[in-house]
Amino acid sequence: MHILITGAAGMIGRKLIDRLVIDRALGDHIVEKLTLIDIVQPARPAGFSDHVKTRSADLAGPGVAAKAIAERPEVIFHLAGVVSGEAETDFEKGYHVNLDGTRALLEAIRTAGGGYKPKVVFTSSIAVFGAPFPYAIPDDFHLTPLTSYGTQKAISELLLADYNRRGFLDGVGIRLPTICVRPGKPNKAASGFFSSIIREPLAGLEAVLPVADSVRHTHASPRSAVGFLIHAAGLTREQLGPRINLAMPGVCCTVAEQIESLARIAGPKVAARIRREPDELVVRIVSGWSERFDAKRAAELGFKAEETFDEIIRAHIEDELGGKIA
Amino acid sequence: MHILITGAAGMIGRKLIDRLVIDRALGDHIVEKLTLIDIVQPARPAGFSDHVKTRSADLAGPGVAAKAIAERPEVIFHLAGVVSGEAETDFEKGYHVNLDGTRALLEAIRTAGGGYKPKVVFTSSIAVFGAPFPYAIPDDFHLTPLTSYGTQKAISELLLADYNRRGFLDGVGIRLPTICVRPGKPNKAASGFFSSIIREPLAGLEAVLPVADSVRHTHASPRSAVGFLIHAAGLTREQLGPRINLAMPGVCCTVAEQIESLARIAGPKVAARIRREPDELVVRIVSGWSERFDAKRAAELGFKAEETFDEIIRAHIEDELGGKIA
Repeated sequence: MHILITGAAGMIGRKLIDRLVIDRALGDHIVEKLTLIDIVQPARPAGFSDHVKTRSADLAGPGVAAKAIAERPEVIFHLAGVVSGEAETDFEKGYHVNLDGTRALLEAIRTAGGGYKPKVVFTSSIAVFGAPFPYAIPDDFHLTPLTSYGTQKAISELLLADYNRRGFLDGVGIRLPTICVRPGKPNKAASGFFSSIIREPLAGLEAVLPVADSVRHTHASPRSAVGFLIHAAGLTREQLGPRINLAMPGVCCTVAEQIESLARIAGPKVAARIRREPDELVVRIVSGWSERFDAKRAAELGFKAEETFDEIIRAHIEDELGGKIA
Repeated sequence: MHILITGAAGMIGRKLIDRLVIDRALGDHIVEKLTLIDIVQPARPAGFSDHVKTRSADLAGPGVAAKAIAERPEVIFHLAGVVSGEAETDFEKGYHVNLDGTRALLEAIRTAGGGYKPKVVFTSSIAVFGAPFPYAIPDDFHLTPLTSYGTQKAISELLLADYNRRGFLDGVGIRLPTICVRPGKPNKAASGFFSSIIREPLAGLEAVLPVADSVRHTHASPRSAVGFLIHAAGLTREQLGPRINLAMPGVCCTVAEQIESLARIAGPKVAARIRREPDELVVRIVSGWSERFDAKRAAELGFKAEETFDEIIRAHIEDELGGKIA
């Protein structure tokens, strides 16, 4: 099986590649070839180099998407995207990457000819929803995003569903909750603090909390995100039906509960490394985000996340810190 | 006040122009100038020619949208669009006109500069919804269109809402129910039969019914559609809030009830001019359409339609047939 990954240099892309290289399989199929694309040159995964093509390219650029699918990958993980904070501050870049890039990929597939019909797994976001919300957001809640990022994701979902319905591809869009704990350095996502208040203290560093402790949100670990992607790739058209864009499960908790969990696992001294410093832009963006989901369809289709925030922190300590706390 | 109308040669465009020329006002403002654009040359309204510019142009073409708003119309009625049947059979044309055309207009407004911030009234459609449906579709029901037309309308709504949120324009999207009775000749809309089964018999002609009598749908007259547009143009940002795309009210009834109404008003001989001839494409498209709405927000905001299908037929006889039945 030949797999194309866009946004392959991003955090989730790299973790997905690691998993595919370790498994050497996706579902029942041997992974024979990987094509990795990103705006920055993706790294070549160790031990699999002979079967990997990497390329730095802008998917929305002329001919780029057609070239990306030239060797007809059977599965495409479309992860490429500008994150929420950047899409809000750079309107044109957000639309170029998140909308035009997605549309270019879909159009390349549609016009490829020869009966080409890949599986396309698209990472959408719970930012497709906008406040005010019911107590828990049901699967049939309307899309009223309050950010340009959420708008671009919602539009991409609609395009994917139409291309799926017309039979140009087999699509599935997974609305990721906030992925936490993100490893590495902070990115420009407005949601970055949800991770940094755990990651930095665990690494012996101070972290800044730009919102109130009472902010409630839904999280899943990077490990779960990779699990969602792989599970989504295995779902059939029949299982999915026409409503192919699905909110994923996650752990629903407040920032205060995240911090309690950190104190429980790593001790109060670690948890004390969080400094409160409200940031109006982040407060405003996050106030429009969803808190809690009733992700029934995802559960029925077998998607699984952690059950508690403790598990999320432990996954981070195992996967990123070699099991040790600083 | 300077008003731009796209899709000005279409049925609703022409009726809106007639009304604006008769009223010589929109809300509290005198109508001083009209710019009329369509893919075919729009007619010059009688008695107002000195203040009208007409142009045949493709809004998605290079520079066309910028030229359309060059004189900074304060209100834009964006009605231009390829209808549902045609968007389904001609995938590329549908996306070009219904998505690229809308985006080009919004981008022209955004980049116009000089603090330009028009009111943009966009005609969306109940085709943004897709089956299965609850008994009545609430205002917060999700967007899962089952046609390319519905997809393009849903995407345009999302774009309009984001451009509104960012302050580039004051937008409002009105989801028209099926407009019935459409005057003139059938167009390529899959919903065309809802009108022709009334219009043709009233004109002494045979009409074809391509779906079952039990099909339920929601209708409003062309007169109501114009009323929605004018009412929408008068709503403020504050009244609308962030959720600017609204399902309009209408008369919910079955095809059988439409025909009963026709028989009641025009006699059984007229109603007998309807011939049943199922059409699989139309049956399939219509089966994915919504039947009934709980259009609470529209009602709260003062949008009004007919209360019975009898009123809809009478509006047609008054407005199109000079009060007479053939």
